[in-house]
Amino acid sequence: MDLIDQLKEGNKRAAAKLITLVENKMPGYEEVLKEVHKLSGNAYVVGVTGPPGSGKSTLTDKLVKSLRKSGKNIAIIAVDPTSPFTGGSILGDRIRMNDLNLDPGVFIRSMGTRGHLGGLSESTRAAVKILDVMGSEYIFIETVGVGQSEVEIVKNADTTLMVLVPGLGDDIQAIKAGIMEIGDVFIINKSDLDGANRTKREVEMMLDLSHYERRPRVVMAVAMDNKGIDEVVEAVQEHHDFLVTSGQYHQNRAVTARDEILEIIQVQTMKNVLENPEMNKELESLTRQVALRKMDPYTAGKYILDNIQG
Amino acid sequence: MDLIDQLKEGNKRAAAKLITLVENKMPGYEEVLKEVHKLSGNAYVVGVTGPPGSGKSTLTDKLVKSLRKSGKNIAIIAVDPTSPFTGGSILGDRIRMNDLNLDPGVFIRSMGTRGHLGGLSESTRAAVKILDVMGSEYIFIETVGVGQSEVEIVKNADTTLMVLVPGLGDDIQAIKAGIMEIGDVFIINKSDLDGANRTKREVEMMLDLSHYERRPRVVMAVAMDNKGIDEVVEAVQEHHDFLVTSGQYHQNRAVTARDEILEIIQVQTMKNVLENPEMNKELESLTRQVALRKMDPYTAGKYILDNIQG
Repeated sequence: MDLIDQLKEGNKRAAAKLITLVENKMPGYEEVLKEVHKLSGNAYVVGVTGPPGSGKSTLTDKLVKSLRKSGKNIAIIAVDPTSPFTGGSILGDRIRMNDLNLDPGVFIRSMGTRGHLGGLSESTRAAVKILDVMGSEYIFIETVGVGQSEVEIVKNADTTLMVLVPGLGDDIQAIKAGIMEIGDVFIINKSDLDGANRTKREVEMMLDLSHYERRPRVVMAVAMDNKGIDEVVEAVQEHHDFLVTSGQYHQNRAVTARDEILEIIQVQTMKNVLENPEMNKELESLTRQVALRKMDPYTAGKYILDNIQG
Repeated sequence: MDLIDQLKEGNKRAAAKLITLVENKMPGYEEVLKEVHKLSGNAYVVGVTGPPGSGKSTLTDKLVKSLRKSGKNIAIIAVDPTSPFTGGSILGDRIRMNDLNLDPGVFIRSMGTRGHLGGLSESTRAAVKILDVMGSEYIFIETVGVGQSEVEIVKNADTTLMVLVPGLGDDIQAIKAGIMEIGDVFIINKSDLDGANRTKREVEMMLDLSHYERRPRVVMAVAMDNKGIDEVVEAVQEHHDFLVTSGQYHQNRAVTARDEILEIIQVQTMKNVLENPEMNKELESLTRQVALRKMDPYTAGKYILDNIQG
């Protein structure tokens, strides 16, 4: 466990190597995950999500710079949208962050949404633990908030920032259902644009209609000009304090642990089927019968389950 | 199995009831799915996907009207985007389709992306089978192409139409990765707008760079004005013929069957854990230990798996 020893000392190259190792499920990845799990749990995880073009990267950039003033070690996991239609600023984002890359107290890692063995949420979760063990005090996960799989990624963040922009208009209605559950702080970014107040009112109205244990704060910001950044940092701190005093912090982490166990059970079950040559042969034969409508997939699935267990 | 008898006779109300039954996993839903699976497999499934505002509903509407001229029975499953940021025309779409609703040879069903017990792709797949047994010859599945879960929905369609609009510009690069895999026919809709030729060129270039067994056709259309509709119908027919003569039709259906079996194995495994009071208690106790970092989730997951199997 040479790499993990280096990781514990804050070695960035060790972190990068370990993330690649678990991302690609290279030999020994489970051992790594077991080890880092036990050593992790100290970092505060902030999810940053919102529609394409809402300025998530710029906001993250500014928040990180602000937190760096107090000497905090920070990591950023930027989930690259390679799914259809999530829009474009992939290269821009990575370039913009380059000046942060020069800061030894900041670690940046991009993760693509394609080409993962296993789910991205699994890889992201693993990366969070590795960076946690490396000594990151804050870990930002930046992701375009489209589709269920992307929402999964920020689901286990301690605080999730929902970044909106003026002019969403009627779309607020459409996005309502999804927003409700995941935003802990709402940010109207680019609030120097027309319609910022209207968007704020719409978000506030939406929050009025929903039931929160603690009503999320709505902050106006122009991240590009460093406006509202202090307020966002404050709102994150407030939410952190709420989580801790209400006991929800530990409750949320228990939910995460439960999700992880269940995910592992599913992954392991698939392995038991697909990595067993005999089971695989059985699956192919059942597949043919199901495709020809001679058997239904339930009967086939249960047959295989009974045989794994046998 | 009274409802299924009615379904076989083409009863729309029976279809609606059965879809609701499986969507909500009401008692007996597995029996229904087993039964309809064996009776299904005759309908041709067309997926329609693309970014918000590309005119998927209008296109579907016109395609259906065109196919109705030859007396085909048709069903439309419209997947409503309630995930964040997928944009807005939910109500518009449903209203626009109302005149189709008056046609006895057309069945329309909306399915929301939230509030499903189990995945939406599972519910959609079940609805396809039910509508197949009802006698639908073509089944259209219309979904906003954002995020992995939405892509899942059209993955098992026989032919998938990718609807684009002029002016995507640089976004083409970003959406490239996702588009490649799922489009069988590309439609540049609203092609009377500026930049239509450029978008077409970009799509063609993108297709040049990728490897297809059969290069997808790119069709220019103005669905609203019924322009290009015949060409799209023709392209679907062409793709259908290619699938059949190349043997890929049956190959694809085998892939679908395999996916279904594996999905059922996963769902059943979760049931074995969560619906067993003793297992549940075990899970809660392990969850606490994992959250406290006294145990890693792998060890916990494997412990539970061993006990289900015991």
